[in-house]
Amino acid sequence: MKEDYVARSAQLALLLEVSAYPKPGNVSRMRDFEDTHYEHFLASSVAVYPVLREAAASDNGVGRLIRRGVAESMKWQAGGNTHFGALLLLVPLAMAAGACEGHNKVEIKRKAKEIMQNTGVDDAVELYRTFPEAKVKVSTDVPELDVMNEASITKIKEKKRSLCEILTISASYDLISRELVCGFDKTFSYATVLANFAREMSINDAITHTYLRLLSEEEDTFVKMKFGAEKSEYVQERAKEIVKRGYEIKEIGDFDGELIAQGINPGSAADIIAAALFIAVLDGLRV
Amino acid sequence: MKEDYVARSAQLALLLEVSAYPKPGNVSRMRDFEDTHYEHFLASSVAVYPVLREAAASDNGVGRLIRRGVAESMKWQAGGNTHFGALLLLVPLAMAAGACEGHNKVEIKRKAKEIMQNTGVDDAVELYRTFPEAKVKVSTDVPELDVMNEASITKIKEKKRSLCEILTISASYDLISRELVCGFDKTFSYATVLANFAREMSINDAITHTYLRLLSEEEDTFVKMKFGAEKSEYVQERAKEIVKRGYEIKEIGDFDGELIAQGINPGSAADIIAAALFIAVLDGLRV
Repeated sequence: MKEDYVARSAQLALLLEVSAYPKPGNVSRMRDFEDTHYEHFLASSVAVYPVLREAAASDNGVGRLIRRGVAESMKWQAGGNTHFGALLLLVPLAMAAGACEGHNKVEIKRKAKEIMQNTGVDDAVELYRTFPEAKVKVSTDVPELDVMNEASITKIKEKKRSLCEILTISASYDLISRELVCGFDKTFSYATVLANFAREMSINDAITHTYLRLLSEEEDTFVKMKFGAEKSEYVQERAKEIVKRGYEIKEIGDFDGELIAQGINPGSAADIIAAALFIAVLDGLRV
Repeated sequence: MKEDYVARSAQLALLLEVSAYPKPGNVSRMRDFEDTHYEHFLASSVAVYPVLREAAASDNGVGRLIRRGVAESMKWQAGGNTHFGALLLLVPLAMAAGACEGHNKVEIKRKAKEIMQNTGVDDAVELYRTFPEAKVKVSTDVPELDVMNEASITKIKEKKRSLCEILTISASYDLISRELVCGFDKTFSYATVLANFAREMSINDAITHTYLRLLSEEEDTFVKMKFGAEKSEYVQERAKEIVKRGYEIKEIGDFDGELIAQGINPGSAADIIAAALFIAVLDGLRV
């Protein structure tokens, strides 16, 4: 069935993304964080399957599905937030993929944008309820609508703010929000980068190369929020050098060690790579 | 839904098993075979999900479901046979788990045995059709019913041999067949060993310890068939020493290197560990 195909493609994307190594600063098959281990990501990828399948069979309920995905993830593993950012992207994309005939990328991209534009107040409320449940660490957020403050939900309801409207505010400083409100441009463009790399090298290397390419071209907003602009610019500069010098494995390893030592994890980049992998797998990428 | 829970437990078992390292002689997150890579196992674990879910909702069709599982696996990855042995065990176990109220291990074990005893000629025929499709390498087999010979299927039909009857013949020299016809004794006993280890150490180490314990206690019949009794006894002796000396990581690594250098992979052991993990996860083991 279509929804099983879509859900499997999204699940494989999550598994391939987290497995790829070395992926500077992030969890991989070779790298656990102190409280969040590789196996927590495996279990979470398993946990969210029924939610991804339901998304592929739905044309509304973005907020509810993301919240359910996070809840399932946390029932199956004790490593905390593993897939919140990835689910933010994958839920509307899976809905779009399920709703389109075939797997035409242009159509899926258009449909995913439409789904986000049609989100309502309920979606916003559900997402706000997810933040504290997911134990997501946020240092900056929509100033007038603090995601960790229960009162924000009342305000959202009073002002009748849709999920898309709220994300439009955070889009100015958050890469994931920007993807969600601006039509998933980066997801689809890096899906193409990834598919091209995969024709020339192993799937593992295609993922790490695409990840580094993304880091070199986009400031990781998660790093910027958590560690400041100087750090996020530094990360981007280092990635640029690595890309320019041809992705030398030793350099990538050193960069990984450096980021890990400082506790810097470019989480937004990993989320976008997972979403890009989903599109590439849907489009026929196989291992 | 029950069947989603059962299917997720089986899928997580496959992912955790293949990820555990060092796992002497077998594929792990740190070890690819030449043609079969870690990522092929990830993709195959994703591929078989709908079949595992269907198994959890079925009370017959063991042969058909195994064949469908293998076909799905091969649609999603190009590494050849990844999960044939594991599916042989997981399909009847998932059927049993789906059919039982709650997750009582004694009941599931009894039900799985009953499901195998109730298999028919159709199940045998379906399994025989799977062998060549799965590109399974067999050097010995049921002598009068060569699994790679199309004529065997005609004979099975003429003689009205059930799957259980055929596996009873191979049970004399094959660990997986023995599990299937004798009521999954090892699967359930190593599920307990594994759950006990997991209380004291990381899930990765719990899996590798259980794997070594199994290698030390049971001759791997896959190794015996492919490399002869001398090699399989040697593998068992080496595993015994490692267990006796307390699972030293360096020794495990050396043993792995040795087996890989000789191309010896204890495949039956890995399949039983996957099945044991399934039972342990059903029973509440979490990461």
